[in-house]
Amino acid sequence: TIHLTSKWGAKFKWGDKETETGMSRLSLSQEDKKVRDWFVSETKSLGCEVKIDEVGNIFAIYPGQKSGAPTAIGSHLDTQPTGGRYDGVLGVTAGLEVLRTFKENNYTPQYPVAVVNWTNEEGARFPKSIMASSVWAGVSDLKEVYNIKSITDDTPVTVLEALQEIGYQGETAASHITNPLKAHFELHIEQGPILEKENKSIGVVTSVQAYRWMGIKLGGRAQHTGTTPMNMRADTFLTASQMAIAVNDIAKRHGGLGSVAELHLSPNVVNVIPEETRFIIDIRHAHDEGLKKMEEDIISEFSKLVKDTEVTLKIDDVFHNSATHFNQLCVDTVYNSAKTIVGEQNVKRMLSGAGHDSCSTSNAKVPTAMIFIPSKGGISHNPSEYSSPVEIAIGFKVLLETVMQYDYS
Amino acid sequence: TIHLTSKWGAKFKWGDKETETGMSRLSLSQEDKKVRDWFVSETKSLGCEVKIDEVGNIFAIYPGQKSGAPTAIGSHLDTQPTGGRYDGVLGVTAGLEVLRTFKENNYTPQYPVAVVNWTNEEGARFPKSIMASSVWAGVSDLKEVYNIKSITDDTPVTVLEALQEIGYQGETAASHITNPLKAHFELHIEQGPILEKENKSIGVVTSVQAYRWMGIKLGGRAQHTGTTPMNMRADTFLTASQMAIAVNDIAKRHGGLGSVAELHLSPNVVNVIPEETRFIIDIRHAHDEGLKKMEEDIISEFSKLVKDTEVTLKIDDVFHNSATHFNQLCVDTVYNSAKTIVGEQNVKRMLSGAGHDSCSTSNAKVPTAMIFIPSKGGISHNPSEYSSPVEIAIGFKVLLETVMQYDYS
Ligand SMILES: NC(=O)NCCC(=O)O
Ligand SMILES: NC(=O)NCCC(=O)O
Repeated sequence: TIHLTSKWGAKFKWGDKETETGMSRLSLSQEDKKVRDWFVSETKSLGCEVKIDEVGNIFAIYPGQKSGAPTAIGSHLDTQPTGGRYDGVLGVTAGLEVLRTFKENNYTPQYPVAVVNWTNEEGARFPKSIMASSVWAGVSDLKEVYNIKSITDDTPVTVLEALQEIGYQGETAASHITNPLKAHFELHIEQGPILEKENKSIGVVTSVQAYRWMGIKLGGRAQHTGTTPMNMRADTFLTASQMAIAVNDIAKRHGGLGSVAELHLSPNVVNVIPEETRFIIDIRHAHDEGLKKMEEDIISEFSKLVKDTEVTLKIDDVFHNSATHFNQLCVDTVYNSAKTIVGEQNVKRMLSGAGHDSCSTSNAKVPTAMIFIPSKGGISHNPSEYSSPVEIAIGFKVLLETVMQYDYS
Repeated sequence: TIHLTSKWGAKFKWGDKETETGMSRLSLSQEDKKVRDWFVSETKSLGCEVKIDEVGNIFAIYPGQKSGAPTAIGSHLDTQPTGGRYDGVLGVTAGLEVLRTFKENNYTPQYPVAVVNWTNEEGARFPKSIMASSVWAGVSDLKEVYNIKSITDDTPVTVLEALQEIGYQGETAASHITNPLKAHFELHIEQGPILEKENKSIGVVTSVQAYRWMGIKLGGRAQHTGTTPMNMRADTFLTASQMAIAVNDIAKRHGGLGSVAELHLSPNVVNVIPEETRFIIDIRHAHDEGLKKMEEDIISEFSKLVKDTEVTLKIDDVFHNSATHFNQLCVDTVYNSAKTIVGEQNVKRMLSGAGHDSCSTSNAKVPTAMIFIPSKGGISHNPSEYSSPVEIAIGFKVLLETVMQYDYS
């Protein structure tokens, strides 16, 4: 099923088979609408009740013997503009497969089991990752999120406009209180090189590193590149270049990660010094204190960089997620399931570099854990993202086992 | 008249008066069409024959006593996206005023006098400055120029498409051989701080500095910012940042100018390392040898910057104009006219930092010279560009006197 969904938003194809393609299925795009429609109809045909909340999160709930908050299997069907077929998609389609397995075997769980498709996990189209799960978790404000503007469209649209455009602004409140989950499990590709390098087949994710996105706006003066002496300029892009290098150095110095990957110049023509440069910094660290130190260093070094220039600096907080530590019982349930299926020597407890919707559910105090499978070459957010059918089948079995065990715990 | 034309493309207004605005009249845009239509109708009503060539250059020819190649007054009506009301516009509207003065005084020049509006002088919308005058001069190839794509539109269009869109692909061949000029004079704002600082009212431009635009394309790998270790990246924007700083250092070292003001990242989202970064470098130097050395340093330092990384480098030649030295007789005619009008102590022989259509006519071996008037604060390519009515009136008188003298020389 995972490759079946890639027909909606396939891009960067290198062959005719459905597995020979990358993906570009930006959140709340027309392609995203199609895969959502398919997800809703598939889960309904399995007997699920489907709820759509105000921010487009889809909850497909498979009934249990007793009523109560469902144990959820969640992830996201949106992808990066230069994405692959696995990141997020695996978690949702594997959840569907769990429900299909229940149905084919006439198995009824004790409590309901939900498969959840969270909106805009990637933060690619709307620059806030794990966006809609954060609203559900009460960490982000609904109104603020509705007003976030897209950065990948020629004419930016807001989240609210995009939701209405594809008909996915639902009626259920986006709230972990009125629409609660008993637990949240997520199967995901590692997106890093560790499992492959250490030859392990399952990663039991115990925590997710802290990360922060900082919005930077530099103001200078539009002037002629051919007549303005080098020492009379207020060149915002020169300053931005120095800042990008500083971010890199600071990340290395603190053993974290730091990147500048999104940037806009204005007016962005060859012979006018850019009067404005805007960019978003992505910094990450295993520990909250490490991230805090990186942030402090960035603020102090950036202030130094604009000092003695005529460039002005404005820093905005775009997104922040503290280091997440998953629930002990959930982690143990994953670990034990994995041990049963592949043997202890093939299981590794590990940290996630990327953020996931499971951070949001964990923030909402919902017992949460994640299952990783290897990513070829550690490559992700790239059309060549790959995990083998065998690796996926193992991941699926661990997920199924985990959910069944947890449901009775 | 200069402010009259600013109604087409006014932007960044700070008041209600027609002089209280900046401009954004990109070449071959709808606003450009309107000012062109006005220019054609005005010159026709003065009794001009109007020719439009294949690349949209407009020649409005006022008849003389004898037939023969006209003495031209030329510049451009297009502006930067963050432009002012003077750069280029002054040269064309002052030309019109010369014709009006002839007509009002029943004066017939010996030979025809033309006012020329050259297409895309700025190189802002289509990244090649003095574009259409270069085609006319035989320096640039018509077919290649037709295929240049805009960099300021959401959906890029070619020069040919834009010409056809506004109906300004004319029938006259773009050629200095079949559509020759006897001479070319251009009145322009200095766009730099020298005349103002030295309290001179007229600059007699003897030469224009050499400049080159180099297109840079860096290839790397789209990867996750949150999972890709700092030492496993092929981050094209990090390399681009180092390059922008190198361009700056090289310019200072050689006493030239160097700028990176136009840049595009791909995919340009927060959490994907940019797999491609493209930008155009603008370097300038008073001497061809100086420019050559800057170019060599850039090539060698850029090669060093990508060495030992996984980033690939491709350099394209986008535009080049050698240092231009204007015709002695034309320069002397301007100098003598200026001396008569403002006195020798108010006249300065000088170099132009910016490129001008006069470089093209000079390249075509048409006797050429330019007249500069002061620019407030040396500011140009900015809405606050300013020259006073008195400064403009003086410039106009020198232009009129120059053209009348040259016509009889
Ligand atoms: N899993 C994943 O790629 N999430 C996107 C959010 C992030 O940038 O970490
Ligand atoms: N005069 C003027 O601004 N020309 C644009 C070409 C250049 O960049 O010098």
